Amino acid sequence: MPATLDLTGDVVALLRALIDVESVSGNEAQIADAVEAALRQYRHLQMIREGNLILARTDLGRAERVIIAGHLDTVPVAGNLPSWVTDDGGRTLIWGRGACDMKGGVAAQLSAAAQLTAPSRDITWIFYDNEEVEEDRNGLNRLAREQPRHLEGSFAVLCEPTNARIAGGCQGTMRVMVELTGKAAHSARSWMGHNAIHDAAAVLQRLSAYQAREIEVDGLRYREGLNAVNITGGIAGNVIPDRCEIEVNYRFAPDKSPEQAEAHVREVLAGFSARITDVAPGARPGLDQPAAAEFLASVGGEASAKFGWTDVARFSAMGIPAVNFGPGDPSKAHADDEFCPADEVLTCRDALVRWLS
Amino acid sequence: MPATLDLTGDVVALLRALIDVESVSGNEAQIADAVEAALRQYRHLQMIREGNLILARTDLGRAERVIIAGHLDTVPVAGNLPSWVTDDGGRTLIWGRGACDMKGGVAAQLSAAAQLTAPSRDITWIFYDNEEVEEDRNGLNRLAREQPRHLEGSFAVLCEPTNARIAGGCQGTMRVMVELTGKAAHSARSWMGHNAIHDAAAVLQRLSAYQAREIEVDGLRYREGLNAVNITGGIAGNVIPDRCEIEVNYRFAPDKSPEQAEAHVREVLAGFSARITDVAPGARPGLDQPAAAEFLASVGGEASAKFGWTDVARFSAMGIPAVNFGPGDPSKAHADDEFCPADEVLTCRDALVRWLS
Repeated sequence: MPATLDLTGDVVALLRALIDVESVSGNEAQIADAVEAALRQYRHLQMIREGNLILARTDLGRAERVIIAGHLDTVPVAGNLPSWVTDDGGRTLIWGRGACDMKGGVAAQLSAAAQLTAPSRDITWIFYDNEEVEEDRNGLNRLAREQPRHLEGSFAVLCEPTNARIAGGCQGTMRVMVELTGKAAHSARSWMGHNAIHDAAAVLQRLSAYQAREIEVDGLRYREGLNAVNITGGIAGNVIPDRCEIEVNYRFAPDKSPEQAEAHVREVLAGFSARITDVAPGARPGLDQPAAAEFLASVGGEASAKFGWTDVARFSAMGIPAVNFGPGDPSKAHADDEFCPADEVLTCRDALVRWLS
Repeated sequence: MPATLDLTGDVVALLRALIDVESVSGNEAQIADAVEAALRQYRHLQMIREGNLILARTDLGRAERVIIAGHLDTVPVAGNLPSWVTDDGGRTLIWGRGACDMKGGVAAQLSAAAQLTAPSRDITWIFYDNEEVEEDRNGLNRLAREQPRHLEGSFAVLCEPTNARIAGGCQGTMRVMVELTGKAAHSARSWMGHNAIHDAAAVLQRLSAYQAREIEVDGLRYREGLNAVNITGGIAGNVIPDRCEIEVNYRFAPDKSPEQAEAHVREVLAGFSARITDVAPGARPGLDQPAAAEFLASVGGEASAKFGWTDVARFSAMGIPAVNFGPGDPSKAHADDEFCPADEVLTCRDALVRWLS
């Protein structure tokens, strides 16, 4: 029997009920059942289920359609289930795996979906699986591949944690392997070899001296970063190493395509062998769109740039401007002391309702 | 039944017989049986066996005693057994695991031990086990610990491969771990952290620029080396690493004690956290000793410095000057294409016989 979710009652109770259904990636069936059962109570929503992905759509013939999405899965539990609540000087905090990333956002979505019986724009609510794991298991990615018509819309909101502020677009991310080769020799006769680890000095020197840029895109400032994230070299304690590999991560502003990002990295690392191993494009914030402008006005405050990569980039790749907007501090995502403030869940829920009423 | 070794016949046959008794470290019983059985034929030798270590001593009441030692074990076989022979422009080469390190030397020892029935100095012939593995399993080390009286002598020759030339003493070796610490952060917000791998640039720069010294000790020139032999750092592809470790190997001339070597490394790496993880002292060549001078004269040619660490350092630590002198190219030790030239076995055997007749 699925957990019962009350979408019109207290959001703290709703969020705790969501947290208490453990849903580590791959194990979303139970939470998907609960979400589906709760939303099926509402006649203004058409329900579609594909595996553990749930779509709830209004179909009022509005001129415009927006998408509001969130994922149901979490990273592995770290002794932080079931949920608990604390009072932080009058502020209610809800703790537990997924509180921040991103069941707080899911609670805001569900509560708003129940209230918005006659929205000003048609809405496609999406609750998906497997966001925290490999790209090819990602539910949103699967939907885009298999049933792209369900992803039509002029604007999308992803309820990832942003402290209940609009965080526009996202940075792109690229991984590059720098490979240094030398010549092995016994370390007692080091002059017979060539030390590949020593050659890493020049690469690391260049990365260390690199001044990351700040770039404005659609009115938001993105701060980039170029960092060694892994280094490995060495054969044995008595051998001059003939190989050293440095993995470099470039986080780039969404003004650049992956090709432009690669050109920049190759320029910085000129003279060294660099191999691109992974790239995910960024997403422009798209705040010049009318739906986005209205959303901004409803939320109030200032939009900022989103630094981490999120699924907004998937919408962006499909030509749909998208922003992140959800309760919780993004730096608490995946942390063992993950929590979400109740007031931010309400702020997000109310902003969505205000925007689309 | 142990293999039969003929100590007075052809040295090529003797060396091949030794090679063909596989004796990877820990598995020396069979070769020790064969060596013991062969030497027991000779009445001028007193035999002592301790595990797989064999001592064969003359006891003629000479004023002086010398030690001539070699190990019976080899590194693991790499498809290079049983032995084979090739002709290299009239020069016979014997191939197979252990040919060079150091059954060629053992063959020279056995052949000389059989001939030297009335040597000018008393001789302690040592054949020992477990040289290629951890220090505490080393047979010579065990003997020094448990029965040091068997290691009395004014001079020692270790028949490790030196191309049949005298290689004096050996360098010391020290391993040092340089630990860099930073602060972890998500790589999308790299400015929140401190990259420990980037800090490795300064350490590697210093090692790369380091000019290794050449130092003369007792008339031999030792060339030192200070090298990174391992580097490791990194947590995940999207995390600024808070830790990077560099393992450094210092090969130092035997003019220095381990304490002096440590002081030098700490001076070079001043400002960084360095931890000594391992040290083995070097050995002075001791070529100023009378026995050594006579040995040099018997062998002819020039002595050179030995770079790799060998068990001569154990003799040196006990106050016994020691040199390396054996057939085979030291750079072929542990190599898959390990071989030993027959003429070098004879050169070494004849030099030992000439010296002690």
